[in-house]
Amino acid sequence: MKVVALAGGVGGAKLVDGLAALLPPTDFCVIVNTGDDFDHWGLRICPDLDTVCYTLAGLANPKTGWGLRDETWTTFEAVKSLGGPDWFRLGDKDLATHLVRTQQLGQGHALSAITREFCLGWGMVHPVLPMSDEPVRTIVHTADQGSMGFQHYFVKYGFQPVVKAFEFRGADQAKPAPGVLDAIDLADLVIFSPSNPWVSIDPILSVRGYRQALENKVVIAVSPIVGGYALKGPAAKMFNELGIRPSASAVASHYGRLLTGFIFDQQDQEELEKIERWRIIPLLTNIIMKDAQDRIRLAQEVLEFGETVLSRSR
Amino acid sequence: MKVVALAGGVGGAKLVDGLAALLPPTDFCVIVNTGDDFDHWGLRICPDLDTVCYTLAGLANPKTGWGLRDETWTTFEAVKSLGGPDWFRLGDKDLATHLVRTQQLGQGHALSAITREFCLGWGMVHPVLPMSDEPVRTIVHTADQGSMGFQHYFVKYGFQPVVKAFEFRGADQAKPAPGVLDAIDLADLVIFSPSNPWVSIDPILSVRGYRQALENKVVIAVSPIVGGYALKGPAAKMFNELGIRPSASAVASHYGRLLTGFIFDQQDQEELEKIERWRIIPLLTNIIMKDAQDRIRLAQEVLEFGETVLSRSR
Repeated sequence: MKVVALAGGVGGAKLVDGLAALLPPTDFCVIVNTGDDFDHWGLRICPDLDTVCYTLAGLANPKTGWGLRDETWTTFEAVKSLGGPDWFRLGDKDLATHLVRTQQLGQGHALSAITREFCLGWGMVHPVLPMSDEPVRTIVHTADQGSMGFQHYFVKYGFQPVVKAFEFRGADQAKPAPGVLDAIDLADLVIFSPSNPWVSIDPILSVRGYRQALENKVVIAVSPIVGGYALKGPAAKMFNELGIRPSASAVASHYGRLLTGFIFDQQDQEELEKIERWRIIPLLTNIIMKDAQDRIRLAQEVLEFGETVLSRSR
Repeated sequence: MKVVALAGGVGGAKLVDGLAALLPPTDFCVIVNTGDDFDHWGLRICPDLDTVCYTLAGLANPKTGWGLRDETWTTFEAVKSLGGPDWFRLGDKDLATHLVRTQQLGQGHALSAITREFCLGWGMVHPVLPMSDEPVRTIVHTADQGSMGFQHYFVKYGFQPVVKAFEFRGADQAKPAPGVLDAIDLADLVIFSPSNPWVSIDPILSVRGYRQALENKVVIAVSPIVGGYALKGPAAKMFNELGIRPSASAVASHYGRLLTGFIFDQQDQEELEKIERWRIIPLLTNIIMKDAQDRIRLAQEVLEFGETVLSRSR
């Protein structure tokens, strides 16, 4: 079974990590949101891309989910003491990623090619593809603080501003990165990781070509919302602010007709009927991933469910 | 007595450090060569400016003379492992200087203003001024390896290429940094530090306005050459390759009519007659600075000699 996963940052990376433990690199690749990318300290930072890569490489900080393990903060502290911006923490080892990437982008290399080289260097075997080589920027339009790039909303303002709408600036000019549409075309199963639908998966879907490529594929999503709360980050808050009660079924409804199957937590059993009414094949299970074992267990269930969905949709 | 020193990197910084220990910040400022500046890892590096600042701030690495003390190399090692350029070492703390500077330059701030803020942050009291806010780039034209920027010649190729000529690209468009000409105008005494005449002092003099400003000033130089050898770096090799026997008097002759006084090492006593014949007031002393005491001792002698030269030239 050939599988493609769409992923954002920390939450998505966990499931992707489990899937990578079960699938060979010939049968699994990850397409990562780059709408979060931004320039900071004069460097191009790709938070989701790095989180997925660091996680798959076994280099991620297990406590935070983002950044590198055994990180030091020497440059960050020195930048801070020189009056440089300190609202986004960059570790010494992580910094090298942004320095080399920024330089190579400046030399005209594509983000996807740079990422491929980095992955080799980090000893990774599964392909990780940015959603696009062209810049797409998630802009958060807020009710109370104007419009801002996603990292400003998320990190600088701690996702406190009230969300009014999202914009994926540049999406209409962007193309999927080389190899992405082929990978989807060849895939038996596409998985939407338990990432934020608004700002992790939607930016990918906003790039021309993705929705069309996914239309006739078997797509299953894993809910990032359990018991009305987001497992991590502002997903539930966003649903609320956009006038939608946050719930697993709200996530399924958000993806709508793209979904063939939907995996949500057993504590949301009361939503089962709604999902079934929408003719989305449901799987109720424990979707909370606390450790490496959970990642593999859930990935295993996702793949088994995928097989079931595939056989039922044939 | 108001004093201005012109300085390059490590050698010049030592004397400047001694002078700063003896003179209040109202009476002493340093003008630093920026011809060595270059872009590396996408960052603006100002090697001489940083060496002088780190030295005056008491932050310099005492073993190398450049870079910061107690430095770590985490980012550098990670950049290297990602295939980034590793011929110019940048420490983690030092990196912050380049990151913040590059960002502030990109925001339109002047190098002199940025440097002033940095100096405050490092707790320095004496003004350190870049020779110009506009880029001037020392290009080394070599007989055997074409033309290259100074840091490529100096660090990447370990000053092995044979020098044919120097070019200070951009000097004709550059202006002295704000405050520099006023400082020279107000100075009783101008000191050329024991820096490389070709690539540390000449780039400063190549910027329009400096030679004219210095013409009627009392200028004394300290030789960077002792016993035919450079105290540090490629000065002697450069003299040789340009067809001039390296010697203290060759340095004095290089500066020519700009000099009122010249300080050189007692082991070069046989050059005394030549210097006197050129009507340059000589001082023979021990100009080798091995430790902090030497810096202050030589600075003391330079200032006393300056008083003598001043009284004789009045």
